[in-house]
Amino acid sequence: MTAAALKPRRTEMHALLARTHLCHGLPESRIEELAAQAAVKTLLKGCVVYSHEEEASWFYLLAQGWVKLFRETLDGDEAVLDILPAGHVFGETALFGNGRYGASAQAVEDAVVLVLPLTALRRLIEEEPRLALNMLDSMAGFRRQQEREIEHRSLQNAPQRIGCFLLRLCDDGGRQTVTLHLPYDKTLIAARLGMKPETFSRALARLREDTGIVVQGATVHIGDVRRLADYTCGACSSTYPCEDKE
Amino acid sequence: MTAAALKPRRTEMHALLARTHLCHGLPESRIEELAAQAAVKTLLKGCVVYSHEEEASWFYLLAQGWVKLFRETLDGDEAVLDILPAGHVFGETALFGNGRYGASAQAVEDAVVLVLPLTALRRLIEEEPRLALNMLDSMAGFRRQQEREIEHRSLQNAPQRIGCFLLRLCDDGGRQTVTLHLPYDKTLIAARLGMKPETFSRALARLREDTGIVVQGATVHIGDVRRLADYTCGACSSTYPCEDKE
Repeated sequence: MTAAALKPRRTEMHALLARTHLCHGLPESRIEELAAQAAVKTLLKGCVVYSHEEEASWFYLLAQGWVKLFRETLDGDEAVLDILPAGHVFGETALFGNGRYGASAQAVEDAVVLVLPLTALRRLIEEEPRLALNMLDSMAGFRRQQEREIEHRSLQNAPQRIGCFLLRLCDDGGRQTVTLHLPYDKTLIAARLGMKPETFSRALARLREDTGIVVQGATVHIGDVRRLADYTCGACSSTYPCEDKE
Repeated sequence: MTAAALKPRRTEMHALLARTHLCHGLPESRIEELAAQAAVKTLLKGCVVYSHEEEASWFYLLAQGWVKLFRETLDGDEAVLDILPAGHVFGETALFGNGRYGASAQAVEDAVVLVLPLTALRRLIEEEPRLALNMLDSMAGFRRQQEREIEHRSLQNAPQRIGCFLLRLCDDGGRQTVTLHLPYDKTLIAARLGMKPETFSRALARLREDTGIVVQGATVHIGDVRRLADYTCGACSSTYPCEDKE
């Protein structure tokens, strides 16, 4: 990490940790113990938090910003595995398997993270069965999310994949008309969906034509959510609205 | 399940369970406890073990045969998530999340499974911290495997995906010439790799041309493993031989 460490604010770190799924139901004293070992760091846009296959000593809680998880091939291409929003814990699964990070992590805009030692997590898991259950629960959630990803990459076409991405940004209020803002830029959305930018542009144009959505810069107006869902969700094993929105 | 239950053979079940990653390092008495609650069932080819989103009561240990994990879309298409060989435990992650199976499971040839109650697994997890760690370890492994899958579907072309499938069947003896047998039929391999049968045929023809491999029925002769690896692994974040072969 290149960004300078900020002065830790213990109560704030405690509050951030307490809201994570990882710490759900843990005694306050245990959360306090973790918070006492945390450091706050700011990351400038583009800063690499850790690299794929690097030996892992730390895990992270994203307090602000967005972090991209990705892998690079020998040929220099990049596969984006996920774009994490604030509130997510990452790097923690390196505690299992070969002790190395399974992907690289990079801030895609200026970000703030809590840095925590994996040794502290290991000790807590051994002493608090609840924490192991929380992690199992999280990992089962990841597994479902990845299964959906593999399913969609097998069976959805490019316009449907964009449609799915938009539908998952809609709140569950059941409204038929939704205006939403793209959470990050279109190049990154394309990468997140496993598309080249030119494929993304063509697919978005096709989606607009087929479903009547209107895109102006980062604002998307969905005039008929049901029409978009009919177009998209036929090629999915779930129906709209999805149960497993993260 | 439609196949008739066989008379359980307790010592055999104990031995099968003891070899799983799930039970690694557990006291013998705990494995015995699980074995006492297991039933052996034979599954005819095509038999569905459970369906996606079905409420989960059981988990399974595959003793013989192959089981396909898949999801079906509303349009009736099928995405194959995995083809499991004997020795694998499946259905156990339904213990977490919403308590439903995350995919359907089907025997792709005649198979034998041990059927075990999820309630027994839940109790064991609460009482044996080691079991939770084993499960975390397994799930971290699954996560890496799925990340590889997403990476390959993003960046490898169809011949490279087939090349990768073949390389992962080679043993790690470092031999330059390998003759191997495809573990299941080509239609299923195509589905496992997320390809339509006609794409698979074209891609296999291209792979033969580009790397000199010879395919006769279910037998594949790789005359130069290094040549195949050069062709395939440039579009991957790992180098050959892979560390994470399952």
